[in-house]
Amino acid sequence: MSITVVGSVAYDSIETPAGRRERCLGGAATYFSLSASFFTDVRVIAVVGEDFGPAQEAVFAARKIDTRGIEHTAGKSFLWEGSYLENINEARTHITELNVFAAFEPKIPAAYADSEFLFLANIDPVLQRRVRESMPEVKLVAGDTMNYWINDHRPALLEVLKGLDILLINDTETRVLGENKNLVQAARAVMAMGPRILVVKHGEYGATLFHRSHPKGEGAERTFRAPALPLEQVIDPTGAGDSFAGGFFGYLASQPELTPGAFRRAMFYGSVMGSFACECFGIERLQQLSRAEIDARFNVFRELTHLD
Amino acid sequence: MSITVVGSVAYDSIETPAGRRERCLGGAATYFSLSASFFTDVRVIAVVGEDFGPAQEAVFAARKIDTRGIEHTAGKSFLWEGSYLENINEARTHITELNVFAAFEPKIPAAYADSEFLFLANIDPVLQRRVRESMPEVKLVAGDTMNYWINDHRPALLEVLKGLDILLINDTETRVLGENKNLVQAARAVMAMGPRILVVKHGEYGATLFHRSHPKGEGAERTFRAPALPLEQVIDPTGAGDSFAGGFFGYLASQPELTPGAFRRAMFYGSVMGSFACECFGIERLQQLSRAEIDARFNVFRELTHLD
Repeated sequence: MSITVVGSVAYDSIETPAGRRERCLGGAATYFSLSASFFTDVRVIAVVGEDFGPAQEAVFAARKIDTRGIEHTAGKSFLWEGSYLENINEARTHITELNVFAAFEPKIPAAYADSEFLFLANIDPVLQRRVRESMPEVKLVAGDTMNYWINDHRPALLEVLKGLDILLINDTETRVLGENKNLVQAARAVMAMGPRILVVKHGEYGATLFHRSHPKGEGAERTFRAPALPLEQVIDPTGAGDSFAGGFFGYLASQPELTPGAFRRAMFYGSVMGSFACECFGIERLQQLSRAEIDARFNVFRELTHLD
Repeated sequence: MSITVVGSVAYDSIETPAGRRERCLGGAATYFSLSASFFTDVRVIAVVGEDFGPAQEAVFAARKIDTRGIEHTAGKSFLWEGSYLENINEARTHITELNVFAAFEPKIPAAYADSEFLFLANIDPVLQRRVRESMPEVKLVAGDTMNYWINDHRPALLEVLKGLDILLINDTETRVLGENKNLVQAARAVMAMGPRILVVKHGEYGATLFHRSHPKGEGAERTFRAPALPLEQVIDPTGAGDSFAGGFFGYLASQPELTPGAFRRAMFYGSVMGSFACECFGIERLQQLSRAEIDARFNVFRELTHLD
């Protein structure tokens, strides 16, 4: 089944202990769609400026990603500049230029209307909601957000959460959104806002999948923890969370049935894609990747966690 | 096989968001030995003051822990007072009174001489080394330490590390001791100092077992990550790390052979015991525990992490 994703397609200037890169193609929708494209068909809704040309278009085309929903307008694309010099796990933002994103009004191509999966990447919840409402027929909706929206745009975000099946956020975001220092209690509070599944990303410690209810008995859904791979060198963590989301949601979309086992494997594929994203600057590693490498690493994750 | 443990038997005054307890029986050797006692015979070497009486003695006796190596002297027992009010994962120390511990000279009872496993809990590395050298026949030696010794007593600690098979420390301690911000590289640096196995405890995110070499092929030892249980309420995390060590080392001592599979299961039992320790103040939960509860939770940990 195909996924439609709405989010940022942007340029990132990144500095990490491993070096510096200027104006790499990035943005949440870019990382998400490259990652998910190894599992299923992906369609992107975004806006770019005149600085997005055939070279950038080719990045998506190489992964057969549908870009008919990427609107081209006058001006410059979204720009983010940040560094990870003191702490490789925490970005310090130097510059955020919304540029063409400031007036973004998502338009859904008619050709996207039969997408059964929808991913609302981290953008203004007003836009997330508009896209969600324009695609009422989708089977499964997942989304991401960040502390800025949680703190300063809470009412709009709460409206979005009502329409989500799955929310993917990190530890801090979960505690702030759920207004509770205890992760399990915060997760329960967040799920009461709408999503029946919450995936909390712990960075270098993996991720946890929570369910709104924990039915007992055969095949019951359950809390599940996927590890992260202990990496000898993190070149650039930019986009690791979006790559996780792409692997997780892409794998789910590839499955004939959304069984508890499918969700557990999806958590592993999310972690796998997040680990690859960190190995090179920007999207470089995702561009070079093969499905065979992905499945080999899936087995490494199994070895890393399984008793037998 | 029996374990001899040397470390502190102490009183703790603890404040957490769940409440406050004055002068609970605690100390690394207490938590370690209670935890390990569910798996094998344990013998303690420590020093206590006149405030350690029959009631405290009974805590060890109830778990059939050999206390002939606990020396009774004039004065007061080691006292620690701390709180976890801002961050449940990080103790803030208010008072540390060494008391009788200041002049501690570990003496090993003749009856302990046939212990095949030795655990050097977090005490002055000069004392750890003395105990290690007094028991040259032990089959497996594990130890713990903390930032104070790493930073201010490094030469003495490096001598101890040469005689360790297994070191159990946390993330920060690993990075400081290994002088590297990357955990994998720091772990390798630490293992080059002596221990062939390093267990890095990640608190609420579980723990990782690293090996000095990663041989390939059938049955090869491998890096292994055990989760922690997402707990709905952490009453008191005091002693969770020592309880982890007790479960880990106790389980290993109970095994006929130290296979890679035994180490993986030991990681799970360590996490299981750490999770129980957090459920009540001080040692309360460990005192009420049964082996059946431990094995039931082991299965919960398997469910939490295994794909099938």
